[in-house]
Amino acid sequence: MQIQDVFRLYADDLKRVEAHMEQAIISEANLIPEIIRHLISSGGKRFRPLLLLATSDLCGYKGERRYPIAMVIEFIHTATLLHDDVIDCAESRRGNVSANNVWGNAASVLVGDFLLSKAFRIMTDDGSLVAMKLISTTTNTMSEGEVLQLVKRGDLRITEKEYLTIIEKKTSVLISAACVLGGILAEAQESQIEALTRFGMRLGSAFQITDDILDYVGKEEKFGKAIGKDIDEGKITLPLIRALKKCSAQERECIKNAIQEQDKDKREKAIQETMALIEKYDGISYALQKAKVCIREAKTFLQPFTDSEAKEALNAIADYLIERNF
Amino acid sequence: MQIQDVFRLYADDLKRVEAHMEQAIISEANLIPEIIRHLISSGGKRFRPLLLLATSDLCGYKGERRYPIAMVIEFIHTATLLHDDVIDCAESRRGNVSANNVWGNAASVLVGDFLLSKAFRIMTDDGSLVAMKLISTTTNTMSEGEVLQLVKRGDLRITEKEYLTIIEKKTSVLISAACVLGGILAEAQESQIEALTRFGMRLGSAFQITDDILDYVGKEEKFGKAIGKDIDEGKITLPLIRALKKCSAQERECIKNAIQEQDKDKREKAIQETMALIEKYDGISYALQKAKVCIREAKTFLQPFTDSEAKEALNAIADYLIERNF
Repeated sequence: MQIQDVFRLYADDLKRVEAHMEQAIISEANLIPEIIRHLISSGGKRFRPLLLLATSDLCGYKGERRYPIAMVIEFIHTATLLHDDVIDCAESRRGNVSANNVWGNAASVLVGDFLLSKAFRIMTDDGSLVAMKLISTTTNTMSEGEVLQLVKRGDLRITEKEYLTIIEKKTSVLISAACVLGGILAEAQESQIEALTRFGMRLGSAFQITDDILDYVGKEEKFGKAIGKDIDEGKITLPLIRALKKCSAQERECIKNAIQEQDKDKREKAIQETMALIEKYDGISYALQKAKVCIREAKTFLQPFTDSEAKEALNAIADYLIERNF
Repeated sequence: MQIQDVFRLYADDLKRVEAHMEQAIISEANLIPEIIRHLISSGGKRFRPLLLLATSDLCGYKGERRYPIAMVIEFIHTATLLHDDVIDCAESRRGNVSANNVWGNAASVLVGDFLLSKAFRIMTDDGSLVAMKLISTTTNTMSEGEVLQLVKRGDLRITEKEYLTIIEKKTSVLISAACVLGGILAEAQESQIEALTRFGMRLGSAFQITDDILDYVGKEEKFGKAIGKDIDEGKITLPLIRALKKCSAQERECIKNAIQEQDKDKREKAIQETMALIEKYDGISYALQKAKVCIREAKTFLQPFTDSEAKEALNAIADYLIERNF
């Protein structure tokens, strides 16, 4: 099964999720649905709702509760995107602030808050305390992950282990929660919930690692990310961490300039040299290898489940994550 | 009973709330408790926890659940303060950005998110679905109120009715929720819950109106607010709305300059003139009168409750709101 087949398999369900989203964003403050629509209609793949649909299918649940809960996960993700925008603008004064954004930081913060609180409101309608606990813990962990990332920004001493902890907290836990909620809806056994948790965590880490790789090698037209944006914002991700570990003291100085140099031209030059160092020390293939290991491990957690179309779909999603760009 | 007596009455309970807060802000990301401590120890009066303690007392509940739930309300309030800082900095580039705040917007957004999600997490430990529904609805309404305020910023056409809607949504609903939660904990009758809702709404509106008055007449040393800050940020509150309604076309131009003029000196001058116009048209006493009506109405909702120390305390809190500054 290919990723397109997975989307086809759950196309009708995803449409139901979209319809729920359209309803839930209505507000007396018209600006709110306006901004949310702008975000949710700008090429989001509904990766997390898709995972929830596939995992609930895997465990035997195909009822109506999937739609609002998949929406909740997508809302939390969207809120994170909104708040991330503020964070990136605020911290990296070099970053491109979209000047034509009339409302700027204020609206991003508030609409993010609207989506977060709406997510919890919707969960209380569903009424599952277990699901609510999972979602609130997840959201809390995500904010911790973001703070850890913030604290480590520009710190060349960051270790691979610290990087992995940050991405687990900021990214993997929500992807894992999407998978686990599928199991919760199906009232799956404890062992299955545990397997889905681990599957989601590995999948999430592979997702973030490949996302970070894309920052170096992705095509801007395709992924909407400018090359080298992370480095320009002082975000030190796995390919660079690898280069930092292998490089000479002199080369390390060059990387330091890419992160810290105030003069734009000098910094640009240092960034180019840093890219070459990542190439020299195989930073990309090292990171990709790590992502592949995550995916391999993720898939082992699916093995105990009975073979089904849903299981094929989840395996296809996993494979897609490491094939999508390279 | 005076306000000091109320604080004395619930001093031990408030200490328990503080202790719960200290526990709940612990995080692997040390920056989180650091920032929260900075905020929660900087002179917050715990007005909302106090209301919850007094209303639960009023309805006959004095158990342990008061502490975590009072903490939840204070966390939501603190999260709002953090996010408000970002909003005010972002929108009013003239406003004072505290330059020595190393972490700036990013940390404020993230620690706000940490507190919000922690609040929901704590609620799931308590397990009351009714309380969770109330809290998530309240938080959602607050973000709508903030967006409405943002949209109306600098708009001289804002009506008193629009202003009242905004303050109800951004401020009164949380104060009302604090009061209602006291009733929910005590398993109060529906009519009592209804009375507490209305009491809290009126109290909250009086609180915000007097807070807005303080922006014009308060002493900076005492309340930590610079005079005329709202007007400098384009926030048009009740005293100014009153002046706008009564003033001549020429005077309106002056107010317009106070809001829109780019040149700092000219704007300063226009702000001074605007202050004189508010004085001329009795904007402060008009607003204070409105606040007094809110307090009078609020107190009528307490009448059906049996006389008690808690009832006296709530009446004292209500009276304090309009006496605190004038």
